[in-house]
Amino acid sequence: MRAFVTGAAGFIGSTLVDRLLADGNEVVGFDNFSTGQEEFTAGALLNPRYRLVRSELLDLEAVKAAMAGNEVVFHLAANADVRFGTDHPRRDLEQNTIVTWNVLEAMRAHGVRRIAFSSTGSVYGEATMIPTPEDCPFPVQTSLYGASKVAAEGLIQAYCEGFGMQACIFRFVSIMGERYTHGHVFDFYKQLLEHPGELYVLGDGTQRKSYLYVQDCVDAILLALERASTPVSIFNLGTDEYCRVTDSIHWICERLGLDPKLQFAGGDRGWIGDNPFIFLECSRMRGLGWRPKLTIQQSVLRTVEYLQANQHILAAR
Amino acid sequence: MRAFVTGAAGFIGSTLVDRLLADGNEVVGFDNFSTGQEEFTAGALLNPRYRLVRSELLDLEAVKAAMAGNEVVFHLAANADVRFGTDHPRRDLEQNTIVTWNVLEAMRAHGVRRIAFSSTGSVYGEATMIPTPEDCPFPVQTSLYGASKVAAEGLIQAYCEGFGMQACIFRFVSIMGERYTHGHVFDFYKQLLEHPGELYVLGDGTQRKSYLYVQDCVDAILLALERASTPVSIFNLGTDEYCRVTDSIHWICERLGLDPKLQFAGGDRGWIGDNPFIFLECSRMRGLGWRPKLTIQQSVLRTVEYLQANQHILAAR
Repeated sequence: MRAFVTGAAGFIGSTLVDRLLADGNEVVGFDNFSTGQEEFTAGALLNPRYRLVRSELLDLEAVKAAMAGNEVVFHLAANADVRFGTDHPRRDLEQNTIVTWNVLEAMRAHGVRRIAFSSTGSVYGEATMIPTPEDCPFPVQTSLYGASKVAAEGLIQAYCEGFGMQACIFRFVSIMGERYTHGHVFDFYKQLLEHPGELYVLGDGTQRKSYLYVQDCVDAILLALERASTPVSIFNLGTDEYCRVTDSIHWICERLGLDPKLQFAGGDRGWIGDNPFIFLECSRMRGLGWRPKLTIQQSVLRTVEYLQANQHILAAR
Repeated sequence: MRAFVTGAAGFIGSTLVDRLLADGNEVVGFDNFSTGQEEFTAGALLNPRYRLVRSELLDLEAVKAAMAGNEVVFHLAANADVRFGTDHPRRDLEQNTIVTWNVLEAMRAHGVRRIAFSSTGSVYGEATMIPTPEDCPFPVQTSLYGASKVAAEGLIQAYCEGFGMQACIFRFVSIMGERYTHGHVFDFYKQLLEHPGELYVLGDGTQRKSYLYVQDCVDAILLALERASTPVSIFNLGTDEYCRVTDSIHWICERLGLDPKLQFAGGDRGWIGDNPFIFLECSRMRGLGWRPKLTIQQSVLRTVEYLQANQHILAAR
């Protein structure tokens, strides 16, 4: 297929690009390098089936120009900083909602009918059902990030109904693994490099979260897209387990051979709008035959190994 | 209170403005008169406690300037044309989602903490539970209108969590009554004035919908706002009944003394993204002691009487 990937220089986007190329596809990547990394695109750029467009998704004409000739869109570009939404409240609206509208309009302009979209478990807010299924009770949003993603999901769904498109929407837990550039493992590892004897932890450490390895995530996206038969398919993507922040700290410190003094910020959550318990019901995706290959612990350790081998990434943000 | 009302020259907005003034409040109305009517504001403008701002909600600085000094926001401005979303797919995004972000930002700039918001039963898409409660299964959007409103709801909810605001979100069925300027009664009455012997009906006439009288709607908004104790309160607003399109046609024609030949467009719905069965569970709002005073039939007849007495309104759109 001829695939168009937004966020193509990002953590998940670049991993997907490499996989699509390895599978023999033609790929156009699109990225503004606001958080994307040059090095993540280096391998792909050696491939004659790859073309990288450096531009802004907020520029509709640029998106339209780049979209021409593609068959499937993987829309992974996003502002993924859940935590700092209230510091710059327009960013999620622009980068996650308006940009998705631009992608859809560009698809419509060129008759591109299929889209895979990276949504988030954050759309469930503080879920009343745990593990949370895709059809849980209509949630109330608690973060600008979640709100911007639920808005993007709605736009995609309405375009499917109104313009005959087909969408796979994936609600991710936090993703881990090679090319990981932000999140708690990143923050903890960076702190421990600078001050091996102490670790500052947001909340009280009891927050429970689920995580998924990036290659397992890419496997799921490609399988779901292949199997999708309805106009709108929605899949939770996560592992069938969760861990506490303190579990993750234990695994990280054990791997590093450290025993830091933990300082907790206190409170039952990390920041305003944080959800202290994220655990998604993923049986719908498992029903297609998909299984994650790594556990949460293995994903966390794989991430630590990646950061150890690529310490320059810590300076990237 | 000092109330800020968007869409103040519109059907529901102007009715609310008049009520707020009658109750002794200070009111600032805001409208761009894209669909608002000068005559709906005439009474209010005689009141020294009313100030009307003619401007664009898409202009953030204009909204901020008008917001100063207010205590409560009634955000009723919207593109309410569910049916023509696919003809101009950016309109709902701009007029319903981005505009709501502007209203929230202006509130934040001035420390205004309370907002009442007119959402819609269209956010339920094709609901799997009927009558549909507020916490029904996470819906899939089927119209750009519904998508833009669910996006606005999410923004409001996230602002409540992030910035300590308090919101009442109302998911309306179609509203009827004096100052009604669009919808099926409007369309049918206009057709019958021009051609009393025939009536063209979208769909097959079996579509089932619920309706609410505008004064009952305003009663509910004011009562809910008075009673709200949680950061985010969500209320369906409708009657505990529904009717078929053919029922409504029968009531209208009987009142007009006409017996037109009905021509059905066919299909089970009126347009792409239309929901052939809208019926909301309103026990949450009823739990506050609210009861609609008019039945659907009475609302439809009240609307026909209003149009008969105000035929110039038919030319307004």
